[in-house]
Amino acid sequence: MTAATLRVSGMTCAHCVNAVTEELTAIGDVTAVDVEFVAGGVSTVTVTSAAPLDDTAVRAAVDEAGYDVVDG
Amino acid sequence: MTAATLRVSGMTCAHCVNAVTEELTAIGDVTAVDVEFVAGGVSTVTVTSAAPLDDTAVRAAVDEAGYDVVDG
Repeated sequence: MTAATLRVSGMTCAHCVNAVTEELTAIGDVTAVDVEFVAGGVSTVTVTSAAPLDDTAVRAAVDEAGYDVVDG
Repeated sequence: MTAATLRVSGMTCAHCVNAVTEELTAIGDVTAVDVEFVAGGVSTVTVTSAAPLDDTAVRAAVDEAGYDVVDG
């Protein structure tokens, strides 16, 4: 079991949180997605998975939901 | 054909607009829903219907979507 934390910007409401959670959950090996939601700011998203995740897949999932991963 | 205009607060993103549009479209006689979206502010929603709509039904639909009709 491994957990990755990423910062995601652009989410403004619970619908946004659902969209990101659904896209990330669809990645193979992902067992849980937890979002510390900051409306209109940078939210902290923790993705738990059975095996380490490919960073590109994680970013693609967030992008697919319509939001951006913030670096740094 | 008749059109009713209402002011709706609390919508912050396109997901919110979709939720309100879907609930209003589900009302019988409604043929179109148009939203002039103001993120985080008061959006103007125009509901076109074959017959005049019951105000209570319209408000209930907006409430069901999770938002509020602003009076005045």
